[in-house]
Amino acid sequence: MSTKSTPSISLHGKAYHLPKQPTVVVCIDGFDPEYLQAGIDDGILPNMAAFLKNGFHQTAHCAMPSLTNPNNLSIITGAPTSVHGVSGNYYLDKETGKEHMIVDDSMMRGTTILAKLADAGVRVAAITAKDKLRRIIQHGLSPEKGSICFSAQCANECTEGEHGIQDVERWLGQAAPAQYSGQLSLFVLDAGLKLLREERADLFYLTLSDYIQHKHTPGSREANEFMKAIDTRLGDFVKSGAVVAVTGDHGMSDKSDEKGSPNVVFLEDILHSKWPGCGARVICPISDPFVKHHGALGGFVRVHLTEKSALAEMITDCRRIPGVEVALTGEEAASMYEMPLDREGDMVVISTKDFVVGGRREEHDLSQLGGHRLRSHGGLSEQQIPLLRSTSVEPKDVYSTKTWRNFDIFDLVLNY
Amino acid sequence: MSTKSTPSISLHGKAYHLPKQPTVVVCIDGFDPEYLQAGIDDGILPNMAAFLKNGFHQTAHCAMPSLTNPNNLSIITGAPTSVHGVSGNYYLDKETGKEHMIVDDSMMRGTTILAKLADAGVRVAAITAKDKLRRIIQHGLSPEKGSICFSAQCANECTEGEHGIQDVERWLGQAAPAQYSGQLSLFVLDAGLKLLREERADLFYLTLSDYIQHKHTPGSREANEFMKAIDTRLGDFVKSGAVVAVTGDHGMSDKSDEKGSPNVVFLEDILHSKWPGCGARVICPISDPFVKHHGALGGFVRVHLTEKSALAEMITDCRRIPGVEVALTGEEAASMYEMPLDREGDMVVISTKDFVVGGRREEHDLSQLGGHRLRSHGGLSEQQIPLLRSTSVEPKDVYSTKTWRNFDIFDLVLNY
Repeated sequence: MSTKSTPSISLHGKAYHLPKQPTVVVCIDGFDPEYLQAGIDDGILPNMAAFLKNGFHQTAHCAMPSLTNPNNLSIITGAPTSVHGVSGNYYLDKETGKEHMIVDDSMMRGTTILAKLADAGVRVAAITAKDKLRRIIQHGLSPEKGSICFSAQCANECTEGEHGIQDVERWLGQAAPAQYSGQLSLFVLDAGLKLLREERADLFYLTLSDYIQHKHTPGSREANEFMKAIDTRLGDFVKSGAVVAVTGDHGMSDKSDEKGSPNVVFLEDILHSKWPGCGARVICPISDPFVKHHGALGGFVRVHLTEKSALAEMITDCRRIPGVEVALTGEEAASMYEMPLDREGDMVVISTKDFVVGGRREEHDLSQLGGHRLRSHGGLSEQQIPLLRSTSVEPKDVYSTKTWRNFDIFDLVLNY
Repeated sequence: MSTKSTPSISLHGKAYHLPKQPTVVVCIDGFDPEYLQAGIDDGILPNMAAFLKNGFHQTAHCAMPSLTNPNNLSIITGAPTSVHGVSGNYYLDKETGKEHMIVDDSMMRGTTILAKLADAGVRVAAITAKDKLRRIIQHGLSPEKGSICFSAQCANECTEGEHGIQDVERWLGQAAPAQYSGQLSLFVLDAGLKLLREERADLFYLTLSDYIQHKHTPGSREANEFMKAIDTRLGDFVKSGAVVAVTGDHGMSDKSDEKGSPNVVFLEDILHSKWPGCGARVICPISDPFVKHHGALGGFVRVHLTEKSALAEMITDCRRIPGVEVALTGEEAASMYEMPLDREGDMVVISTKDFVVGGRREEHDLSQLGGHRLRSHGGLSEQQIPLLRSTSVEPKDVYSTKTWRNFDIFDLVLNY
């Protein structure tokens, strides 16, 4: 039990033991605690119910903002976004004034737990639903180190040289599913399970897509079917000899009114109307030009100003807008929510649980919702996610004296 | 409000603005929230009551363990003990096997907010009750930088060359009080107040002694008198133009039974009795050979073993001892409570709120309590402390979306 007796790596001041048995970490994208609760209540999640009963369970908070890229990186670095530097899926480069989507690891500071474990000889398999996330978390993983890293989305393009595996569709016996489907996530789990059974990796990071959660409410037929399919596979990992830990990158909230219309604060329109000379540019860090199911509308935006003299007044005004929970200077927000200060806007605005906040009305194509109620995330209301482990960390009252975060999951699964 | 417009320093990934007005940070040693509540209820703390009403107030958690040195360093570094490295007042050097009291800054990693502000031209005054703490927090402060740093205890030994001030007793018109007195703390505040009125410093860190709190229960005549005297001086700082922030290094709990006898787990005796060959050495990081009022008994101990094979069994057994709240491997404890792993014991044992945990019965001289009920700290039960600011951070619901710690106090007072 001492650091001398078992090999370990360390990152950002924390130590992580090398896995002693096959170890599977699953990030269920958009894993709001309500999906878990509804599935348990409906009796359709026997394996997760067993984790709750005989393993470890806490409802934890994710990193801020409650978005996919920031939290996947927090999970694989064990640190808040202030440390690894990626606080959005989409950002404004303050030097050039240009907007960019995060498509690779170039914005990340430091390395990852996965990369350090791979360097220490652990065979790592990291599989994502979408390829854009694969390009980020592949940092420091290479076939030369024995790592396998690919996405379900591009499963038919894998090569031994880049991904450490090829002919994935044929090997798995499944065609790569559509990018916008629940099946994409199940493909990730199925591929991980086959790698485990073939003993091709020691440590697995399997990270899914929130396509279903953006559309379907907890307890709905579609959500329950999806959760049940995940649960079955989690049970298969356990049966195949792995210790399994599960968390989410963020929660998910309904953002529509009684009639089903989205509750939106079009913040850039409001700011330009009242302060025409402020040059406000509202950046929605949830934005993804390829994703249709949320119209780039989430619970968190950054405001960049060319004229900042009215900032204090703006903040006071923003706090009075119905649907706004928090308005802060970028500095205050960075400090309060552990985000990287140098990448913060002049102002941060966070919406209430039932609202989203966006830029200009014309930028957000709500017709893309396709008749669904808007469900989204990004704010403080979507911080809660479950943190589960298949095996017990007893006694519960001792281990719950720590306030766990989703990015403690590698600590939880490797060190206790 | 942007980092470009106001000068700032940074430490451990956090930025701190240089003070724009005289800024006073007070650490009330042993500032259990019950002292504040009792004093407010009794109507004897008008200034702190005003801070609660018109300023900022949260009940926050301190760093672990809940002891003086670790938390004073956390406060002036803005970081948990895992970052600055000092996780006790007293420790076992694992290399030499010898026990040491922390008497200077040699165990600290990195520098302090105070030192960085001094380097940036801020005139810092840091005054402690006891001289042993002065030697620690003086790190990076020197008269050449315009800093003043001394202790009430050794006020009559100050020199311009070492402390940036001399003839303190004559200057203040008060003799240095006895080391074991409440007056020692009030001397710290009086000296700070005079420096403020003479405009000799811009930023003040004033840290007191818990002599009164170790002896007297919240709401008692002695405790109320002491708290009232502190409160009067906090009001004087405000009247003299300063923004004031107040927190504690740790709380304080009653540790005696109904008859007034201390509730003690003599852990080293228990371990040697059951595992004679384990070579257990129980280190009480609250120990201070010069302090009599707690008999070196607190809520947190580290156990170092020469024979570790029974560790898992020992932990299971320790969890069954009445009065034990938590027993963990040193590794688990370091990870859960953000303490430096390389300075951790093989096992950490933390007592319940009404108990203390010690080493061998013969090591702890309970007659030193002098008839008082044992009051002490160090464990999880003494993590809560108030965090106050004289001026408002409105609206409250926005700024309470962060979980504040006592070591956020410089962030709170300089950045919002």
